[in-house]
Amino acid sequence: MQIIDGKLMAQRLKEEIATEVSEMVQNGERPPHLVAVIVGHDGGSEAYVANKEKNCQAVGFKSTNLRFDDSISEEELLAEIDKLNKDPEVDGIIIQLPLPRHIDAQKVTEALDYHKDVDGFHPINVGRMAIGLPAFKPATPSGIIELLRRYEIPTKGKNAVVLGRSNIVGKPIATMLMQKGTPGDCTVTVCHSATADIKERCLQADIIVAALGVPGFVKEDMVKEGAVVIDVGTTRVPDPTRKSGSRLCGDVDFDNVKDKCAWITPVPGGVGPMTNCILMKNTLAARRRQFPT
Amino acid sequence: MQIIDGKLMAQRLKEEIATEVSEMVQNGERPPHLVAVIVGHDGGSEAYVANKEKNCQAVGFKSTNLRFDDSISEEELLAEIDKLNKDPEVDGIIIQLPLPRHIDAQKVTEALDYHKDVDGFHPINVGRMAIGLPAFKPATPSGIIELLRRYEIPTKGKNAVVLGRSNIVGKPIATMLMQKGTPGDCTVTVCHSATADIKERCLQADIIVAALGVPGFVKEDMVKEGAVVIDVGTTRVPDPTRKSGSRLCGDVDFDNVKDKCAWITPVPGGVGPMTNCILMKNTLAARRRQFPT
Repeated sequence: MQIIDGKLMAQRLKEEIATEVSEMVQNGERPPHLVAVIVGHDGGSEAYVANKEKNCQAVGFKSTNLRFDDSISEEELLAEIDKLNKDPEVDGIIIQLPLPRHIDAQKVTEALDYHKDVDGFHPINVGRMAIGLPAFKPATPSGIIELLRRYEIPTKGKNAVVLGRSNIVGKPIATMLMQKGTPGDCTVTVCHSATADIKERCLQADIIVAALGVPGFVKEDMVKEGAVVIDVGTTRVPDPTRKSGSRLCGDVDFDNVKDKCAWITPVPGGVGPMTNCILMKNTLAARRRQFPT
Repeated sequence: MQIIDGKLMAQRLKEEIATEVSEMVQNGERPPHLVAVIVGHDGGSEAYVANKEKNCQAVGFKSTNLRFDDSISEEELLAEIDKLNKDPEVDGIIIQLPLPRHIDAQKVTEALDYHKDVDGFHPINVGRMAIGLPAFKPATPSGIIELLRRYEIPTKGKNAVVLGRSNIVGKPIATMLMQKGTPGDCTVTVCHSATADIKERCLQADIIVAALGVPGFVKEDMVKEGAVVIDVGTTRVPDPTRKSGSRLCGDVDFDNVKDKCAWITPVPGGVGPMTNCILMKNTLAARRRQFPT
């Protein structure tokens, strides 16, 4: 059994990005610039944005947080996004969700210039990815692909079972795993709440991607010997033994599953740390007016 | 065993559309208008366009074929598409492929106003469909969904195996079958050229969608008793017993498979006849400035 060390891989990826940015700046070019649009106050958003700022600093990006009061109208917000779209010194834009109820989040997402949509949420990027065209792809599934690539885990012809059909993880990782290429070329099965025989499906899997958000869902008797298990779950559960009173819990019963696996990602320290780094990778590509590889 | 009669269902769908158009015209509104953009001369395109014209006439649509010599430049073609985008009396636009080599087909597809993209090939429609938003969806997979709906074939929790991962059939039908809804909520597996155990996969399937383009690929010993088999293959094979010297051959060995099936589509007369009707359905929705249901 080998642990997939997402923290280490994220660190390496950040160093690679930092090196590229440093060369860029030495050549007299401006560094990549990522703008976060934040409306109102949301605890989750604040933590995410703080983490993003720390990462931007670490790799040498310019980072701007554009904060608006939650009284801003949809029209005003769309006008602000239009300004960012047109600003040649803004490379990547992320819209922090949730937005206040009076603002149509889908409309705002679609108002972004898709060349600056480093979160990969614009339908045109979702579609380009599905078609197999260069695109900005969502961070979490891209992070999984990056881990498979860096650990040189074979995927061609493997049976991959994706648990969950969300727009930000399940569906895009299924698309990425089935595409031609390396990593890719998997036979992909997507399971979800309506699936009758999840255990049987999992037992046939060479690769399991668990993205249901149900703590400890994947048990020892659902995993075949030698499988690769990627755990995307990050549910906060109470834990009185911790100072904070809680801990992050994955979708996989790690302690009991790990010894059956060829490779497994822990929670925390697996998929999670890659996510924010992919945002940096996407922003660097946007700075070069390219799509990420 | 029941044959899914695509010809009959297509006829009914056309009648429904014709009734709506007739009411529209009686109310003093103009009928839907579908424009086909044709560059150069291609035998396949001509046959398709002729069929489209016949269908437009049958349902009461206005139909225009805009023909350009294959010497037209990409820039000129894009300018023509811009005119069609802006023309309030054009509801649906289809670009006949293939285009001459000096024209970037992807660029032309993306130049279409996606509200008029009744073929559902624009990345924004592909993405909207993947996300589960209202969208124009490609005709062939939409036709399959329409057949499942009209025959009230249960799909929820069923294991669906899609053979093929093309952008126009395999990937979109997989997306449609896995979405929440009816038809939908299938556990979907996508198999392709890199899949190791296609036979085993098919034997587990409650629903098989064969879209590989390999005549007679799905054999009797690959289908479980009571399965639903949807055949998307339309390969022309030599047949000296026919006057024309050839016949259309599906991806399923129909004669030997049919008795194991609960439902099966024949070739011809199954999925094929629905395809052009879906284009009509999409154009009617575009006329109403809606997305099709």
